[in-house]
Amino acid sequence: MRIHDQHFRTIWPTQNAVSLIDQTRLPFEFVIVSVTTLAEVCHAIRHMQVRGAPLIGAAAAYGVALGIQSSATETALAAVVQQLIATRPTAVNLAWAAHRMQQQLLAVPEAARASAAWLFAQAIADEDVAQNLAIGQHGKALIAAKASVDAQQTINILTHCNAGWLATVDGGTALAPIYAAHDAGLKVHVWVDETRPRNQGASLTAWELAQHGVPHTVIADNAGGHLMQHGQVDMVIVGADRVTREGDVCNKIGTYLKALAAYDQGVPFYAAVPTPTIDWQVARGADIDIEMRDADEVAYISGQAPDGRWQRVRIIPHESTALNPAFDVTPARLVTGIITECGIFAPAQLHTLGQ
Amino acid sequence: MRIHDQHFRTIWPTQNAVSLIDQTRLPFEFVIVSVTTLAEVCHAIRHMQVRGAPLIGAAAAYGVALGIQSSATETALAAVVQQLIATRPTAVNLAWAAHRMQQQLLAVPEAARASAAWLFAQAIADEDVAQNLAIGQHGKALIAAKASVDAQQTINILTHCNAGWLATVDGGTALAPIYAAHDAGLKVHVWVDETRPRNQGASLTAWELAQHGVPHTVIADNAGGHLMQHGQVDMVIVGADRVTREGDVCNKIGTYLKALAAYDQGVPFYAAVPTPTIDWQVARGADIDIEMRDADEVAYISGQAPDGRWQRVRIIPHESTALNPAFDVTPARLVTGIITECGIFAPAQLHTLGQ
Repeated sequence: MRIHDQHFRTIWPTQNAVSLIDQTRLPFEFVIVSVTTLAEVCHAIRHMQVRGAPLIGAAAAYGVALGIQSSATETALAAVVQQLIATRPTAVNLAWAAHRMQQQLLAVPEAARASAAWLFAQAIADEDVAQNLAIGQHGKALIAAKASVDAQQTINILTHCNAGWLATVDGGTALAPIYAAHDAGLKVHVWVDETRPRNQGASLTAWELAQHGVPHTVIADNAGGHLMQHGQVDMVIVGADRVTREGDVCNKIGTYLKALAAYDQGVPFYAAVPTPTIDWQVARGADIDIEMRDADEVAYISGQAPDGRWQRVRIIPHESTALNPAFDVTPARLVTGIITECGIFAPAQLHTLGQ
Repeated sequence: MRIHDQHFRTIWPTQNAVSLIDQTRLPFEFVIVSVTTLAEVCHAIRHMQVRGAPLIGAAAAYGVALGIQSSATETALAAVVQQLIATRPTAVNLAWAAHRMQQQLLAVPEAARASAAWLFAQAIADEDVAQNLAIGQHGKALIAAKASVDAQQTINILTHCNAGWLATVDGGTALAPIYAAHDAGLKVHVWVDETRPRNQGASLTAWELAQHGVPHTVIADNAGGHLMQHGQVDMVIVGADRVTREGDVCNKIGTYLKALAAYDQGVPFYAAVPTPTIDWQVARGADIDIEMRDADEVAYISGQAPDGRWQRVRIIPHESTALNPAFDVTPARLVTGIITECGIFAPAQLHTLGQ
């Protein structure tokens, strides 16, 4: 990813430590944090310094590496894995990456595990980057097909939350096709859902699109349906925290509402995910455990004060409370296709990918 | 309306002036503003110190009264009416009230108009209060019917934006049935959509429900669909800025998304409006002029800093822009009924009310 014209990943190993971009400080501050313990990795995931299904998968892998440096017994490893999985319940990549690390490490002599873990974690990170590049190429074809009707016409794509570079190790999922199309000279414009309550769209998606020079406009989450009614959205592409084997899409709260509007208005709706985001164990999205986050994420909001400092302000009365479900499930019947590194699949065809 | 256990209207005439509650200061400050000129009334409407379709109707009526104090010729009156109508294009009550004032005043000798205007404006305000009480009684029956199945069960009602006391002279539209039900001892709980970007739900609806002691929970606009999927919403009641004669509902941006989810999940969806909100001239909602408001309403948000002061913060990158359509149209096919002071009508039956 390009930041101030320099190349970065969102997370990378350094001397017995892991560096990561602190996403709670964007878009107004670009801060790199170095974590050296499992507890710090868990904190970073729980407090969303790193977030996005693929990225928290990679963070979990590096977390396993940090967590077994002092003891790599089977018991210690299992405890590390459990601690990581408990940080956030909804995204399947986190459990997938932690379990894959566990399985691979158990096949290695105990004395070799501490150093092997770095290699296995690096492989997960590198695979994520490769998968996202492939997602970008498959998805670009959808945009190119729209553009082929009229090469002068801008293709308007609506996205919800952040499923860009920042949600992955590099490359993005939902934004990967957009970057690929933009880099290939196609005219694209992105409607960026603000994505309350954590505002990942307004703060992260807008920021990374701006860094890359992709035309975009931030809108309130409420506005997407109206834009679709007026023919101003050509397709919707979102990421996902988990996709069931029948194609239900669990993603940031509010995705279901956009999928309903897209279906109502005949706008194609895609979820772009690497295959580790597909949960072959689960058929129905209704069976997914939806994370409830702190009500204060609704009651307060942070932004940049006129003097440039971060400022947190309360936006609901002191007498009122809030509820904060973090994800919702879009049923497969509303989903046009799942864009993966292996190609694009209608929900009913997704099973051909699995085992 | 009850504020700190005292009775208030949102707007009332005083000595050659009009007093109003400044709604941009709620929920953290309760400030009464006195306006003495037409220009000040227009400013108050445009900057949403007063907002809500019925209230801006009443404000326009009082604005006409203030506007013709120095000259009440036919030409002066027409200019005043035009100036008021130009402040906000979408709500039909504003034009309705201004034109009614104009018509009634033209029937009065020029010398008597300045004083008659206060009486005509007062009549509009008083009628609004009476209509809202009737809406409350009709709507209460819907809630009572749900409650009759199990008197111990709490009826969960979702609302979007603010169509409460604060959106009217007194009594509210969408919240009128809720207040009536609560006052009658029925167990109700309100899901309050935050309502980005102006946050009328989080700041105004939550505040007035809290003042009246009605149980409520603030949610991000994104959360309503998820709650409906999980059976946590028994009905949706919203207000409207304009309802067409065929029952399309033009209301705060994002209403369409909630109506889609309600329809998808079999949750009844009602708009509660006094009949002046019905535009008999317009059949299709798509023909309604949708107000585009300042992008800064999306780019910045205000709230209470820890020291108690209001603080405005920026929440999108400096490199990004925003778009801010203020309303959307919910097609009649998604609307269960329109609750008016004359009873509850299915959209297809609405025409029986009109002429």
